[in-house]
Amino acid sequence: MADAVRPDKTARQLRLLSDALDSGRLGPVRRMVHTLAPAEIGNLLESLPHGKRMVVWGLVDPEDDGEVLVHVGDEVRESLIADMDPDELVAAVEDLDIDDLADLVEDLPDAVIDEVLRAMDRENRERLEQVLSYPEDTAGRLMNPDVVTVRADTTVDVVLRFLRLRGELPEHTDHLYVVNRRHQLMGWVALQDLVTREPGTAINKLIDDELDSIHVADSAEHVARQFSDNDWVSAPVVDDGNVLLGRITVDDVIDIIREQAEHQALSAAGLDEDEDLFSPIKRAVRGRVVWLGINLCTAFLAAFVIGRFEATIEQIVALAVLMPIVAGIGGNAAVQVLTLMVRGIALGQVGASNARILLWKEARVALINGVLIGSLVGLVALVWFHDWVLSLVIFAALVINFCSAALAGVLLPLLLKRMRVDPAVAGTVVVTAVTDIMGFFSFLGLATTIMLR
Amino acid sequence: MADAVRPDKTARQLRLLSDALDSGRLGPVRRMVHTLAPAEIGNLLESLPHGKRMVVWGLVDPEDDGEVLVHVGDEVRESLIADMDPDELVAAVEDLDIDDLADLVEDLPDAVIDEVLRAMDRENRERLEQVLSYPEDTAGRLMNPDVVTVRADTTVDVVLRFLRLRGELPEHTDHLYVVNRRHQLMGWVALQDLVTREPGTAINKLIDDELDSIHVADSAEHVARQFSDNDWVSAPVVDDGNVLLGRITVDDVIDIIREQAEHQALSAAGLDEDEDLFSPIKRAVRGRVVWLGINLCTAFLAAFVIGRFEATIEQIVALAVLMPIVAGIGGNAAVQVLTLMVRGIALGQVGASNARILLWKEARVALINGVLIGSLVGLVALVWFHDWVLSLVIFAALVINFCSAALAGVLLPLLLKRMRVDPAVAGTVVVTAVTDIMGFFSFLGLATTIMLR
Repeated sequence: MADAVRPDKTARQLRLLSDALDSGRLGPVRRMVHTLAPAEIGNLLESLPHGKRMVVWGLVDPEDDGEVLVHVGDEVRESLIADMDPDELVAAVEDLDIDDLADLVEDLPDAVIDEVLRAMDRENRERLEQVLSYPEDTAGRLMNPDVVTVRADTTVDVVLRFLRLRGELPEHTDHLYVVNRRHQLMGWVALQDLVTREPGTAINKLIDDELDSIHVADSAEHVARQFSDNDWVSAPVVDDGNVLLGRITVDDVIDIIREQAEHQALSAAGLDEDEDLFSPIKRAVRGRVVWLGINLCTAFLAAFVIGRFEATIEQIVALAVLMPIVAGIGGNAAVQVLTLMVRGIALGQVGASNARILLWKEARVALINGVLIGSLVGLVALVWFHDWVLSLVIFAALVINFCSAALAGVLLPLLLKRMRVDPAVAGTVVVTAVTDIMGFFSFLGLATTIMLR
Repeated sequence: MADAVRPDKTARQLRLLSDALDSGRLGPVRRMVHTLAPAEIGNLLESLPHGKRMVVWGLVDPEDDGEVLVHVGDEVRESLIADMDPDELVAAVEDLDIDDLADLVEDLPDAVIDEVLRAMDRENRERLEQVLSYPEDTAGRLMNPDVVTVRADTTVDVVLRFLRLRGELPEHTDHLYVVNRRHQLMGWVALQDLVTREPGTAINKLIDDELDSIHVADSAEHVARQFSDNDWVSAPVVDDGNVLLGRITVDDVIDIIREQAEHQALSAAGLDEDEDLFSPIKRAVRGRVVWLGINLCTAFLAAFVIGRFEATIEQIVALAVLMPIVAGIGGNAAVQVLTLMVRGIALGQVGASNARILLWKEARVALINGVLIGSLVGLVALVWFHDWVLSLVIFAALVINFCSAALAGVLLPLLLKRMRVDPAVAGTVVVTAVTDIMGFFSFLGLATTIMLR
């Protein structure tokens, strides 16, 4: 990643744009913005502080406004919407696809929603209401009800004539769906087959009915996994009765995968994904201080453990010098195990059936790493403090803490998952609390027992 | 993520499969494996310990062998390949697409590569050699040279007849590329247009020449960003002279995005992405101990700082009890800033043009959070140790360490990026080293100056 072969486009544009904005020449900025895709404009807006962001937003082609709103985070979106009057907003969003509109609708002022609904025809209004009736992060909310269906008892030629009459197809249409009279999904026909087969070929012969479909209640995560496992470009969404409700396309799936990865990275640090680079101070403080407070509790717990051994530390100050090493390295080892487990759980590779084997494997790795790192630290401690008993104590404490790390790293994510807490979010705090406490306790406890006698 | 609406398919399959394996009934296992897509089989194999993995691998339909090899991590791949004899391997890989074959080729024994190359026709052999001539993680290595091209001076009808003669199209063909006599890319025509426009329409009129193409030297990361910004299903790859070399499809892009996210999560914990759940103990130890060693160095540095204040701690043991709090919370605050910066850098949103604004913003957030958390900790310390000077010292130390955290969190990733080190990998160690050292130094230093007088 570090050595991208060509310079980064966004970063380069950002610099050019920033220079142009600083010099006050808006003409070049406007021209530049007009060459960008809506997602790129969104990315650019997110990288600008509030003042410049609003200047650039004013220069975006009104035709792109709706698509840009779809492509920015919640917080930036709010600031952009606050800057538009209702008429502009209605114009911006009324031509969006149903799935995009459903994604936006909660951030729009009520007056604008009413206006947009009134401007829609009845069919689209019903479709929007249907999509909005499904919970967020399910297939129902991601699908676009605009699908092209054909009947099985016809030929390639007839379908091609039907398509020419129909005109433009929904974006990313790579299959036509074959349905029966009750709109139940019978299979699908690839666009590729329509252009490579003889006009007289019966559609019946081209139907692929082996492919899985997506259930309307499937989670977004499950949808994403199915797309990447099966290399789909689009897939049909059906209900319990196998009735075709809509389709999901790969561009939305890419957004899901990116958002999941971001969510995981940010929430592991106690941030929510809507905090952007230029969030107002007040919001940034509020967003982060809760997480710091949680970590503070575990830090006090560890301090409390140390407090139990004040008398020991008073006599052997070297313990205070070395104890953060035992706790810290144990934490690193635990995070390694945790990270592997979180990935395994996310991929569905870890379950009750192999947890014991994993625990046994990690216990052995921990024992070996504990002995290796423990010996090294013991040796340095010996050279530093010339006390071989102290050396032995820190060696033993490290081996114990590596084993606690393995135990916590394997078991806690499984436990959190069972408690329906995302182990990617809460895992690190919990396992490092364990290794902090076990680290201080084993080191200071052993020292008290052995060295003070 | 925690409350997926439907039970997880892979986890369920894994349990069923595991039960069937344990009972020794291989028939149901075989039937189950045959219903899975190659990527799903790969995922399943990765979740099994070595012995069971080999049993299941023996049950996979030989036709799927090649695709499964493409879809597993390097380490599992090696173990699967080691289990096959050369003939099986040749049969498994010879029908793969050029891009998949290029991805596998380095893991194959030389004898097998020779055999596969001999079995290929000259055109495909040259294509494979061309793809392999580009560096890993560039567009050239990801592309598939098998593209369908048409000329501009023809009609929809003629193209359709040409396609019917040609037969099956490469997977995920959503566009045909229009080239001139020197095979330079002039634009592309959507398959959708071919099926919706009248047969007599000139191709000339359907050409879209506004779309970006991908340069053969573009980084995989840049390719992935272009796909998600532009909602592409496939995109043409050209060289400096705009000659069409191949195409990249969205299924490979999804793999890139997933791999990047995984790489980031794993490498932040000092793991490489090829370590799988059931890596041999020796490999797991070797892979992790280096990272632990690096962290050990920073832990010793912090211990060294504490060591400078042994005399102070001897007199005021409460300092030893409280000092991990100052260092720890500072580390949490720094990781928050770092995580936002790493995301911003990855999206190209952070550069020299806005670094100063960001630093200023983060400094203010740090000051407020430092005062909030510092007051809380100061209060608890007062209740605990009944010493208001100690209370004041820990308050001040926390404010100082929060500011160091902001400084390190903003500047270090920028510095690492300039040094061409991935901030997502090295960032956490470096910033927490700073906050550990600054935490201990400010707290113990202030205590020495103020409390010992």
